[in-house]
Amino acid sequence: MADRVVIIGAVALGPKAASRYKRLVPSAEVTMVDMSPSISYGGCGIPFYVSGDVSTADELKTTSFHVVRTPAFFETAKGVHVRPSTRAVSLDRQKKEVLVEDLNTGAQDTLPYDKLVIATGSSPRKLPIPGTDLEGVHAVSGLDEAVEIREKIQSGSVSKAVIVGSGFIGLEMAEALSDMWGIDTTVVEITDQLLPGLVSPHLAEMARRDMEENDITFHFGEKVTAMEGEDGRVTKVVTDKRTLDADLVILSVGVAPNDGLARDAGLDVHERGGIIVDDELRTSDPDIYAGGDCVVVKNLITGQPVFLPMGSMANRQGRIIADNLTGRHKKFPGVLGSWAVKLFEIAVSGVGLTMASATRAGFDPVNVHISQLDRAHFYPEKGLMYLDLVVDKKSSKVLGIQGLSIMRDALVGRINAVAAALPFGITVDDLQVMEFAYSPPFSAAMDIVNSAGNVAANVLDGINRGLPPEEFAERWADRESGDICFLDVRADADSGPLAKRLDAPYWKAIPQDELPARMDEVPRGKKLVLVCNTGARSYEAQVMLDAAGIKDSENLQGGMASARMLGTAP
Amino acid sequence: MADRVVIIGAVALGPKAASRYKRLVPSAEVTMVDMSPSISYGGCGIPFYVSGDVSTADELKTTSFHVVRTPAFFETAKGVHVRPSTRAVSLDRQKKEVLVEDLNTGAQDTLPYDKLVIATGSSPRKLPIPGTDLEGVHAVSGLDEAVEIREKIQSGSVSKAVIVGSGFIGLEMAEALSDMWGIDTTVVEITDQLLPGLVSPHLAEMARRDMEENDITFHFGEKVTAMEGEDGRVTKVVTDKRTLDADLVILSVGVAPNDGLARDAGLDVHERGGIIVDDELRTSDPDIYAGGDCVVVKNLITGQPVFLPMGSMANRQGRIIADNLTGRHKKFPGVLGSWAVKLFEIAVSGVGLTMASATRAGFDPVNVHISQLDRAHFYPEKGLMYLDLVVDKKSSKVLGIQGLSIMRDALVGRINAVAAALPFGITVDDLQVMEFAYSPPFSAAMDIVNSAGNVAANVLDGINRGLPPEEFAERWADRESGDICFLDVRADADSGPLAKRLDAPYWKAIPQDELPARMDEVPRGKKLVLVCNTGARSYEAQVMLDAAGIKDSENLQGGMASARMLGTAP
Repeated sequence: MADRVVIIGAVALGPKAASRYKRLVPSAEVTMVDMSPSISYGGCGIPFYVSGDVSTADELKTTSFHVVRTPAFFETAKGVHVRPSTRAVSLDRQKKEVLVEDLNTGAQDTLPYDKLVIATGSSPRKLPIPGTDLEGVHAVSGLDEAVEIREKIQSGSVSKAVIVGSGFIGLEMAEALSDMWGIDTTVVEITDQLLPGLVSPHLAEMARRDMEENDITFHFGEKVTAMEGEDGRVTKVVTDKRTLDADLVILSVGVAPNDGLARDAGLDVHERGGIIVDDELRTSDPDIYAGGDCVVVKNLITGQPVFLPMGSMANRQGRIIADNLTGRHKKFPGVLGSWAVKLFEIAVSGVGLTMASATRAGFDPVNVHISQLDRAHFYPEKGLMYLDLVVDKKSSKVLGIQGLSIMRDALVGRINAVAAALPFGITVDDLQVMEFAYSPPFSAAMDIVNSAGNVAANVLDGINRGLPPEEFAERWADRESGDICFLDVRADADSGPLAKRLDAPYWKAIPQDELPARMDEVPRGKKLVLVCNTGARSYEAQVMLDAAGIKDSENLQGGMASARMLGTAP
Repeated sequence: MADRVVIIGAVALGPKAASRYKRLVPSAEVTMVDMSPSISYGGCGIPFYVSGDVSTADELKTTSFHVVRTPAFFETAKGVHVRPSTRAVSLDRQKKEVLVEDLNTGAQDTLPYDKLVIATGSSPRKLPIPGTDLEGVHAVSGLDEAVEIREKIQSGSVSKAVIVGSGFIGLEMAEALSDMWGIDTTVVEITDQLLPGLVSPHLAEMARRDMEENDITFHFGEKVTAMEGEDGRVTKVVTDKRTLDADLVILSVGVAPNDGLARDAGLDVHERGGIIVDDELRTSDPDIYAGGDCVVVKNLITGQPVFLPMGSMANRQGRIIADNLTGRHKKFPGVLGSWAVKLFEIAVSGVGLTMASATRAGFDPVNVHISQLDRAHFYPEKGLMYLDLVVDKKSSKVLGIQGLSIMRDALVGRINAVAAALPFGITVDDLQVMEFAYSPPFSAAMDIVNSAGNVAANVLDGINRGLPPEEFAERWADRESGDICFLDVRADADSGPLAKRLDAPYWKAIPQDELPARMDEVPRGKKLVLVCNTGARSYEAQVMLDAAGIKDSENLQGGMASARMLGTAP
């Protein structure tokens, strides 16, 4: 039990830890300091404030019951002292004191503590290029900067915006600027896909196409080399491939943990940044806890330390730190990295590893891509969901799942369900029997997650040999080679006129249910690419072909549904 | 590996097992028999067909790719023989033969098998009262009967309907008849709440009120004693309390497993019905498998056998049976009992035990009720979610969770997430750190499931002493007794004019943040009922009162939000 608790940082974890600790130990003296005048706000809401969905900045600072979380609010409602506009200069761990500086007056004093909580958060990464200090160039560093951006937009002085980086924030900002304000918006991304590291190239491509239809322009594989301006205001963004006009530039190239204070005080810090904490969120000094964006935590799938700047994690950790300050021993076991982003009408969401990150982490993974309706196909309101399931070949352990759908909450619900089971080391078998609340308005009798498990089992058994959707275009480009034949096994009812139109040696239409009787029509000696709408019948056709001794086939994962989303369907 | 597989029943599990087994063993001879001419249909879609949401009965029989699953379809697309309108009369387990009868011709013959699968499903329970054979009295026994019901409605001959029973099907049928066809619809339920056994009395009451606003009439605690008719057609439903006019009666009083064939053949059957199977879905005869609505399975929370007639379970089991027929050893570990139902604009969903069923199962449970927005409170589109979390006091194990919300997919997603973790024996601690994909359009930074875990932890710690929402009305009825005072801790901004209007000795308004400074205004020597909007600030007020030595308080779980849903808010 600590009498005096000092908390450095008052955005997400800080206020949560402070308020909870005061409830547990009403007699304690709890002080929060923060560099900014704005405290305790929903930083993840910034793009929605910029868009205008959230009308005032104060709304991001209010409680759910419409009270603004000012320093005075914390004083009266929570009994927590707050010192805004105050910088923690250094720690004296021997004396157990924090040296702080009032940023308005420059006055310094010391705050003694029994226990200290470091919740210094993260800061946007900077680009080491000329021109980032021009007016009109912004990071999304906090609420005060967001207010500036919004004022600029509202004044009508922004017509062309360039966003550097295509992570969550970059894409959310792109939607905010384009959709709500009609600003001509371009995203420049140094890697070759959006949401790099978070989704497969094909899910990224589906999302890109959707955003382009919503008037966002993308340039991938381009490095921003400079900003140029006139009269101190930005006018151009220069990349290694082109120059773009811009009167607003948003830099969203990631964030880095604010671990300097801890590092200077001699606490253990990870070599790539982030304070190291144990599973009770204690630093290498037992009187100092840390959490939120300034720490590294254990990735529950790889076992490796990971930096996960998420307001939700900060909130959960804040409560645990408060509990542990009282002498409880609550654990924060680690993270999976669940995430979701709304992009215009679709959601993209995921948890755990992608094929690429799983390979990097030393697994021997396989990616199973499926498309399926999110609920009973006979129910009127429904939508296709596209999922990537990443499993380890040897152990059949589930390593991650990512998806995209217009049925946004339904998608995020599936991701959350898999996430809830992932800490227990589930395998493909577990996914196959996972229980989803079933009723036609909510789910298919075989839920898409069960289906993904079923397909993965077939893939691991070698009886489903899939063609990843992003490779379909290569096969199609090769169609005149004479080595390849597309076997379209859709029923006439749903294959449409395409099969009839494609009177070509490389395209053969035999509905799957007619295949056994028409096996002699199947071209021999060619690689067969089996296609149907979603990949289910092409798999059944593959089984039938195998049984007939025709083994050189591959069936298009996700079928024409996924190919259409990728723009590669003929 | 079985050469000849016979499957009795061809609705959900049968077709799944048959098709999968043929894919795994293309050379096998697989035969399905079913009493009905209609096979392989989405039985759970019947209410949506009756409503007209699904326009034709064939849609419930089609695949997701618009092909009707006729016997011929199974023959050609799956290589499975089907004998519709065929009854399995008896089994000869010695000879490994099924005696079957063609229901059109009366002809009998025998089907030899190496392995047999019993998928005989369930039948609607009958009421042992006079008049159930009148025209216009229906069970929802299958697609053929649903077609009859729909034709009757479409002919315009139905103006008053009575539904007996308020489980899923009863309520879905009530919505179908009232909402889509404008039929005056009354539900008679023998217990004192709707969805009996599935939700708490207060969630049931919230759902009832919502359905009544949608013009459904309910009579609870009433027993139907007879149907009366004229010219062989039903005209009245007689209960122990009243007589209701009716030209359509739907009996939905549950279903019973069709275990007679198995019982007659000497297979182990549970004393309360349902074929007993092991975790590989094998009956007491190793050559006979069974699954779906005709078996009992293990409840993963109680460890007890349970009868769970759900099309989704049947589908998952069908695949496992097919795998095990090949000699694989796939497990079906048991069930949690996840469910969801859409009722007009709201969803009600749950998994695991309720307070009542947990008590019956021998636990010492506590129910934690909370209300919270389903996503960031500053995000424009959002809705309140009402959750009951049932935990075991001693072990803090999570036993079940049920909820209700207008944000339907969001609710079902939360239930599915908890369901995914339940088989691993999670505790309240696990709920508190459960990772939900966070972004303001999908979740609050502290997701409602985390919040439910937090509140449960506080309740188990004794620092949150809640008043269950259904008991608020009792306190309110007692308000003039002089023993009770309601302490309204909402801020002026959101308590509205109520507190001012209620210039009464039993109602005192002190905003929670003013409480420390105004502690001397708190009435002493009375039971304090603390109220706010959702129960969060009333808990904080309770902590403050405790610290001030005022211990006799209880805070209203779910706050005025839940009281309003229950119609008990003053």
